[in-house]
Amino acid sequence: MIHIRLITPHINDRSRKLQSLSDLRNLSIDLSMVHLDTGPSSIESEFDEALATPYVLGRAIEAEQDGVHALVIDCMGDPGLDACREVVNIPVIGPGETAMHTAAMLGRSFSFITVLERIRPMIEKRARIYGVTDRIASIRAVDIPVLSIEEKSPDLVDRLLQESLIAVTQDRADVIILGCTGFEGLAETLALKLKEAGQPIPVIDPVRTAVLIALTWVRSGLSHSPLTYPGPRDKPIRGYGLPPSPKLG
Amino acid sequence: MIHIRLITPHINDRSRKLQSLSDLRNLSIDLSMVHLDTGPSSIESEFDEALATPYVLGRAIEAEQDGVHALVIDCMGDPGLDACREVVNIPVIGPGETAMHTAAMLGRSFSFITVLERIRPMIEKRARIYGVTDRIASIRAVDIPVLSIEEKSPDLVDRLLQESLIAVTQDRADVIILGCTGFEGLAETLALKLKEAGQPIPVIDPVRTAVLIALTWVRSGLSHSPLTYPGPRDKPIRGYGLPPSPKLG
Amino acid sequence: MIHIRLITPHINDRSRKLQSLSDLRNLSIDLSMVHLDTGPSSIESEFDEALATPYVLGRAIEAEQDGVHALVIDCMGDPGLDACREVVNIPVIGPGETAMHTAAMLGRSFSFITVLERIRPMIEKRARIYGVTDRIASIRAVDIPVLSIEEKSPDLVDRLLQESLIAVTQDRADVIILGCTGFEGLAETLALKLKEAGQPIPVIDPVRTAVLIALTWVRSGLSHSPLTYPGPRDKPIRGYGLPPSPKLG
Amino acid sequence: MIHIRLITPHINDRSRKLQSLSDLRNLSIDLSMVHLDTGPSSIESEFDEALATPYVLGRAIEAEQDGVHALVIDCMGDPGLDACREVVNIPVIGPGETAMHTAAMLGRSFSFITVLERIRPMIEKRARIYGVTDRIASIRAVDIPVLSIEEKSPDLVDRLLQESLIAVTQDRADVIILGCTGFEGLAETLALKLKEAGQPIPVIDPVRTAVLIALTWVRSGLSHSPLTYPGPRDKPIRGYGLPPSPKLG
Amino acid sequence: MIHIRLITPHINDRSRKLQSLSDLRNLSIDLSMVHLDTGPSSIESEFDEALATPYVLGRAIEAEQDGVHALVIDCMGDPGLDACREVVNIPVIGPGETAMHTAAMLGRSFSFITVLERIRPMIEKRARIYGVTDRIASIRAVDIPVLSIEEKSPDLVDRLLQESLIAVTQDRADVIILGCTGFEGLAETLALKLKEAGQPIPVIDPVRTAVLIALTWVRSGLSHSPLTYPGPRDKPIRGYGLPPSPKLG
Amino acid sequence: MIHIRLITPHINDRSRKLQSLSDLRNLSIDLSMVHLDTGPSSIESEFDEALATPYVLGRAIEAEQDGVHALVIDCMGDPGLDACREVVNIPVIGPGETAMHTAAMLGRSFSFITVLERIRPMIEKRARIYGVTDRIASIRAVDIPVLSIEEKSPDLVDRLLQESLIAVTQDRADVIILGCTGFEGLAETLALKLKEAGQPIPVIDPVRTAVLIALTWVRSGLSHSPLTYPGPRDKPIRGYGLPPSPKLG
Repeated sequence: MIHIRLITPHINDRSRKLQSLSDLRNLSIDLSMVHLDTGPSSIESEFDEALATPYVLGRAIEAEQDGVHALVIDCMGDPGLDACREVVNIPVIGPGETAMHTAAMLGRSFSFITVLERIRPMIEKRARIYGVTDRIASIRAVDIPVLSIEEKSPDLVDRLLQESLIAVTQDRADVIILGCTGFEGLAETLALKLKEAGQPIPVIDPVRTAVLIALTWVRSGLSHSPLTYPGPRDKPIRGYGLPPSPKLG
Repeated sequence: MIHIRLITPHINDRSRKLQSLSDLRNLSIDLSMVHLDTGPSSIESEFDEALATPYVLGRAIEAEQDGVHALVIDCMGDPGLDACREVVNIPVIGPGETAMHTAAMLGRSFSFITVLERIRPMIEKRARIYGVTDRIASIRAVDIPVLSIEEKSPDLVDRLLQESLIAVTQDRADVIILGCTGFEGLAETLALKLKEAGQPIPVIDPVRTAVLIALTWVRSGLSHSPLTYPGPRDKPIRGYGLPPSPKLG
Repeated sequence: MIHIRLITPHINDRSRKLQSLSDLRNLSIDLSMVHLDTGPSSIESEFDEALATPYVLGRAIEAEQDGVHALVIDCMGDPGLDACREVVNIPVIGPGETAMHTAAMLGRSFSFITVLERIRPMIEKRARIYGVTDRIASIRAVDIPVLSIEEKSPDLVDRLLQESLIAVTQDRADVIILGCTGFEGLAETLALKLKEAGQPIPVIDPVRTAVLIALTWVRSGLSHSPLTYPGPRDKPIRGYGLPPSPKLG
Repeated sequence: MIHIRLITPHINDRSRKLQSLSDLRNLSIDLSMVHLDTGPSSIESEFDEALATPYVLGRAIEAEQDGVHALVIDCMGDPGLDACREVVNIPVIGPGETAMHTAAMLGRSFSFITVLERIRPMIEKRARIYGVTDRIASIRAVDIPVLSIEEKSPDLVDRLLQESLIAVTQDRADVIILGCTGFEGLAETLALKLKEAGQPIPVIDPVRTAVLIALTWVRSGLSHSPLTYPGPRDKPIRGYGLPPSPKLG
Repeated sequence: MIHIRLITPHINDRSRKLQSLSDLRNLSIDLSMVHLDTGPSSIESEFDEALATPYVLGRAIEAEQDGVHALVIDCMGDPGLDACREVVNIPVIGPGETAMHTAAMLGRSFSFITVLERIRPMIEKRARIYGVTDRIASIRAVDIPVLSIEEKSPDLVDRLLQESLIAVTQDRADVIILGCTGFEGLAETLALKLKEAGQPIPVIDPVRTAVLIALTWVRSGLSHSPLTYPGPRDKPIRGYGLPPSPKLG
Repeated sequence: MIHIRLITPHINDRSRKLQSLSDLRNLSIDLSMVHLDTGPSSIESEFDEALATPYVLGRAIEAEQDGVHALVIDCMGDPGLDACREVVNIPVIGPGETAMHTAAMLGRSFSFITVLERIRPMIEKRARIYGVTDRIASIRAVDIPVLSIEEKSPDLVDRLLQESLIAVTQDRADVIILGCTGFEGLAETLALKLKEAGQPIPVIDPVRTAVLIALTWVRSGLSHSPLTYPGPRDKPIRGYGLPPSPKLG
């Protein structure tokens, strides 16, 4: 069994999300999910990410102590991705990063359909860091805050379809990325509706793909490079009460 | 069971390679492997790739007819990758493409260790197509032709280690890609030796990673975009005797 | 006399095209043209290119044996360009490559007007390989298959004009490339009509330009670098019956 | 008087640094400096930055409440730069960002001389975000931890000179950036020594330049764009006890 | 006192422009302004720039002889910027360069609002030289020649507002650069009107920013690198009658 | 007959250079060459280029009046290229631009061998404008001023060979560009010596190639786009006494 843990970078329990991934158990994947005690109630800004990251780091160190084989950060902005890789040896997967690289392999360009317009600059910044800027066709928003998308009304799928069709026909997207991990479980439905609308193109469910990439790395003996992500130096820290990193140098 | 087929793009049977992947069976992966009747005896040039590609296409169409779920082209140059994606609907994976994108996620830069100096421009061209040029630290060669690396003498691992260490210390590579699918099964050994030499960095075995990415795509319901890879138009072809593509438009 | 040979990468005789180039004879250029016995009936996909390339290689080796001074591949996708350069020492010119670099010198951006929408990703891939992606204003199609453009009805010129004007006014193209070698002989007419419409901008006829670049290289003593395009290694090949490359290493 | 506040993103008081900037008072600049109660004792990793950022945000909001006109984050990694810009309206300056853009204007390429090798990937990431990657000649380290450079022994200047000379002669740097805000006050001495060594090139003291850019923006009526840095949405946050952002949307 | 001189690169006296900068005197900045005896009557083309540059060089050498501390070229095309840096040691500032780098720090993308459509390719070329091409959202023109904008009718501000709003809403600009130094003194008004229109984004007045960057460099002990801008070699020149450069090598 | 005129952008008569091009007469090319009355005695800096350009413009307008079919600026820095294109309708060719694009077609990377180290930043700037930066392997200098290379001692060829071999083996250049038009007539000799040294790679003689590209454009009915290079506006100019541009708008 490969134990993969999802870390939700905010204070709400999202563990029922695991249901949409339950079919992965037959790949010998064991999934667990944790959230934060301290931090924001959702991630919609750099500010939210900043508040979440210290405690995501704590969850990451804790997971490695628990014998977890790989981590997935449950947010498209990949908050804490680089910092987590400094403090643990096990693979840390950001669904934003894996979705963008996967999309870059599936077609010549991709569009994000995300929650709010205000998230656009954050996604562009991540794309710049990951080196895929020139593959982005567009970033579109359904204009619904994260905390409201939980209900997943039929309306939500309609909005996703509408923006996806504009992305394909107008922005020349060849691949769609669901740009919020709160859209989990909707990729299949959206892909079907796009097909019915004459556009049978791939739709990426970032968390699912991230979990499978985590499996890929573990079964290939791979983890992030310690040269890119060296362990932190041992020195005084005031506050937070985090467990010490196994990579302390 | 997910059935993944490896297509060796030359006339030599390499099916014993499957042994090094046999542990993946517990992921419900069923592997098969075919090679060509017509074509070169190994892939070391654009010329070789050109001769191989028409018959790789035949093997791809045949595989989809056989009910295979995904294809992996068994060569780092990904010969026929784009053309195959035009003629079949199932995912077609190029180990060159998946290795480069995986390396780009594992660290800030990577080096290829390949067989011959003469392959360098071909890898650079693929990197340009995939959009990862600026992540390449270097492309180094052990200077042994493909048909001679089969023996995998201890000498081969020494040469790989030697070039990898130069890549890390001199070219500033943070990740190593084994730049020939003939090196299969050596990643673990090389990684171990690098660790012993004080450089515990990730070493990518491209075929293994490609098979796991194939699994990732199948279990995520993903395949290449028909907008990037539209089916060929129906028109007269003289020669080759290929079966008709299921994507004929 | 400089002998330049056009290789049509499909099974249809297009030698009457030479008429539109007959005025170049006074530059001491001797033109010949061959086509394939095996292969597709036109080039409109990566699939078509793959089928054509092995026999384009045969034509290239044959031409060098015939004492030809330079080769031009008669297709905007430049099928077999890199592979041909590996097997012959004489210059091999791709009209796609020369048109794009010429356009990049004539103005800050250019548009392709090609036959079919489905060719767009192929042109984008070539631009990526040639390093001119950021100079492309747009790729537009008249939506007529290659085999139907032969007739060159007045309608065809109208469609070219229409798309060119959109390219200039809407996509901000400063130069037009006729994006299919089947459009040969139409550049002058289109340029005139653009001028009449108030947009006196350059229109590139890729085959004509390619032949003149071939002359440029021959009279400058230039051919492609053997470091970028080293000769193939001598080893068994099954099938095809190609003559051996003069560059066999 | 323009009031500019430096925020030291760790728990040590560095206010004596202000001495090296005291000559700026005659530009009607009033300087103040604060540090953190909670956080790391220096910034040398993504981990350190993550721990510092929440409390840097608090200091930023507090400064705007205090009537400060502009903020300078006192660290080359610019920790919290983007997040701070979301929560305040006054200009927030990162010395890393201003040093890199200034260097890009002073010459064709620049080198960083920083404290430790391990910081290299962090600087490369910032350069990628700022869009100046191709201007970096090299990133070199004197190999002394932040907490030890405070003493500023003659040895430190020698090490800086040594690495700077290699940067110029070997890496082709035309400009030097002192890559740690702990090197404050040494730019002039280093520039003089470089001149004596026959290399009279510009040496950037990032904090000094940052303060003057802050003045530039304030006196030009400029601050970061609210479209790039929209205010955070109002929603529950657990912990931290930060004052509410004036930009709450 | 820091003496900064503006060089107007044409034959019209624009010294009343200094009024809009008079508030900078309390920063101990002393401003002077000169124009040319020979050259064009405004700068609107590469042709105009070519005619201006030799005499801008003369003004630059003269200024250094006069004891001036820094130069600002009073034109967005930065005519003579690189050549001037070769002939003097004091900082030479181009408002085009400083505006673009400042905009790149203020937000993720910027638009130029300039005088005439015909200037677009010149600005794109400068952006290419400065390395900020990918930050340009658009270049828009109010379609009024330089010599007519002097009057600054309310109409002019309306046109600037109109194009700025299209830049923001349609081209996704997050920052506006006033793309002609003739627009001096209008940034504040335009910013106010944009705010009233619901788009409170930064508007850069390039000359004001350039003067403050000149101050920044002088007070940081910085000037352009002599490795990027080496002095000219001593050799015969026919005509022009320029004073000899202090950097003659 | 096609009449091509070379404009030497300095005050020395270089018309004996035409001898090395005399074999091109059999292509129906008629060559003439002019130089300047006013300007520098050679081009080795931005300063020299600035002094030359106004009078190059005069020569260009004059040439079009003379019925010349195309212009070649006789200098690798392409001084006045863009400005000339604004003032005449006939093709204006810069040997720097044509050499770089030709090299980009002949191989994956190229090196310049130029006269003096100080020219390096100028070539890098041109490469940036032309969009070929990433194809440059290196820029090397033989360290001999332009006015001294006229003698073409055997020593000069040795120095060129020496730097070329370092470029190939160390900098990984696949193509060599002779980086000064003063090296005319040496490409063939250098190519031969490189071949004898085991490196049979292409060596570009920029003026020869430029003349043949001029022929290519004229015989293809092509000239630079008036959208990129619009004619100058009609307005007062003081000094220079240039004839009016035929493109005055």
